[in-house]
Amino acid sequence: MAGDHPDAQLFPNATGAAAAMVKAHQEEEPLKLYSGWFCPFVQRVLLVLLEKNIPFQYIEVNPYHKPKSLLDLNPRGLVPTLQYDDKPLYESTVVCEFLEEAYPSATPKLVPSDPYTKARMKIWADFVTSRIIPAFHRFLQYQPKSASDTGLEKFRLEFVEQLKQFTQEMDPEGPYFLGRDLSLIDLVIAPWVVRLWVFDHFKGGIKLPKEEAWSQRFEKWQKAVENRDSIVNSTSERQHYLPIYQRYADDVAMSELAKATREGKGVP
Amino acid sequence: MAGDHPDAQLFPNATGAAAAMVKAHQEEEPLKLYSGWFCPFVQRVLLVLLEKNIPFQYIEVNPYHKPKSLLDLNPRGLVPTLQYDDKPLYESTVVCEFLEEAYPSATPKLVPSDPYTKARMKIWADFVTSRIIPAFHRFLQYQPKSASDTGLEKFRLEFVEQLKQFTQEMDPEGPYFLGRDLSLIDLVIAPWVVRLWVFDHFKGGIKLPKEEAWSQRFEKWQKAVENRDSIVNSTSERQHYLPIYQRYADDVAMSELAKATREGKGVP
Repeated sequence: MAGDHPDAQLFPNATGAAAAMVKAHQEEEPLKLYSGWFCPFVQRVLLVLLEKNIPFQYIEVNPYHKPKSLLDLNPRGLVPTLQYDDKPLYESTVVCEFLEEAYPSATPKLVPSDPYTKARMKIWADFVTSRIIPAFHRFLQYQPKSASDTGLEKFRLEFVEQLKQFTQEMDPEGPYFLGRDLSLIDLVIAPWVVRLWVFDHFKGGIKLPKEEAWSQRFEKWQKAVENRDSIVNSTSERQHYLPIYQRYADDVAMSELAKATREGKGVP
Repeated sequence: MAGDHPDAQLFPNATGAAAAMVKAHQEEEPLKLYSGWFCPFVQRVLLVLLEKNIPFQYIEVNPYHKPKSLLDLNPRGLVPTLQYDDKPLYESTVVCEFLEEAYPSATPKLVPSDPYTKARMKIWADFVTSRIIPAFHRFLQYQPKSASDTGLEKFRLEFVEQLKQFTQEMDPEGPYFLGRDLSLIDLVIAPWVVRLWVFDHFKGGIKLPKEEAWSQRFEKWQKAVENRDSIVNSTSERQHYLPIYQRYADDVAMSELAKATREGKGVP
């Protein structure tokens, strides 16, 4: 199959700081993460594992030659799939919450103990998946049809508006969403935050309104998130993301999310 | 506004057994549920409140004259909105999980204590919202374009297939999804299960393959769910659902979900 699929040229493994992290997680462990080095949904789970220092085995999946061990666990063969006690778990936000509960002594705690704060965090985590990520992809994949086509600007503004709504829910001081401490909501959106450079590279920039208070709060938060070791150590070299995001920017990517975006749908 | 909106003719309040339940929850309580008697997403929250016998005040919202108290809590004015400690919570599955955690002494427990079972329950709760409900609406709202149009049959089969996948994840004995005891996953799908009659009424029936084992398991589960007091006491008289579902069956309903379905999208 490899070679005849238009996404099949993707680089086969993690590079840079992420390569070192992957190398450090090759030993057999009962907890296994079936991964794709480029996948932001996988990165969500990686961030939780790394932040909490939970022992795990990293298994890179070639999406065009999926290992039988993965297909036995999850017939759709999607990443991230977690193997826990020889049983499968998938859906990145479910896996993240699971890790918090299945490893109760692992610190830092990423889910607040107060039920109301926890529920509010879930609402905004859902906002990331149901609003921000689809808006990210509508902006990224948009193809102007003529010189006077204003669609790209429309989708840019829509994306900025979603970031604004999200930012306005943050603790005013921060630097993190809930305040001084990192929590799961920061990690649920982080993989897309560290990919915002794609808009500078391909779409003329996000053009945040830097004079507005929310935009300054956003940048403070963005800096705090980007500097986490877990982020640094789960991020590959930009040159290898480039051809992948080029395909999104040209709207020819064939991932489930790319196709859903073309069909006007949300995260599949 | 009322009268000029095509959905505005809906009956104003709960009837039958649900009217008695509403009457029993009119006293001022710190916990308030802003509700729509016909709304299946509201019913999810009601089921948890009733099963766990948590004291709450029921507030019927006229969607065309939303009370200021609701709009102050939730500017979009959507139901269900929960008022807890004078703060808002919304998104039905988040609210359901919140109630479990905020009232730890209320029984029965609806969320399993084992993290893996809990995570698996969340995956299938998400399947209900992201797959079963959209398939329910595609089937319900489909309008054949000609006498030879086979679209309705296609969407019927798609819906049956989703029910099959869900049912195959159930504990083999049951009667409930996880086994002998009711849990949140049963309540997350229950409001649509007790509305399956709409397909008999409007679309020629679901035509479950009664000879297949999964279909028998489904019916056993359906019977157990339908007989819960919480279901009986949160369900109004069928005659008042009929004009609402007539509008869905004719694909002229104007709810957010009806519009999203028309646009080929999922639960908004």
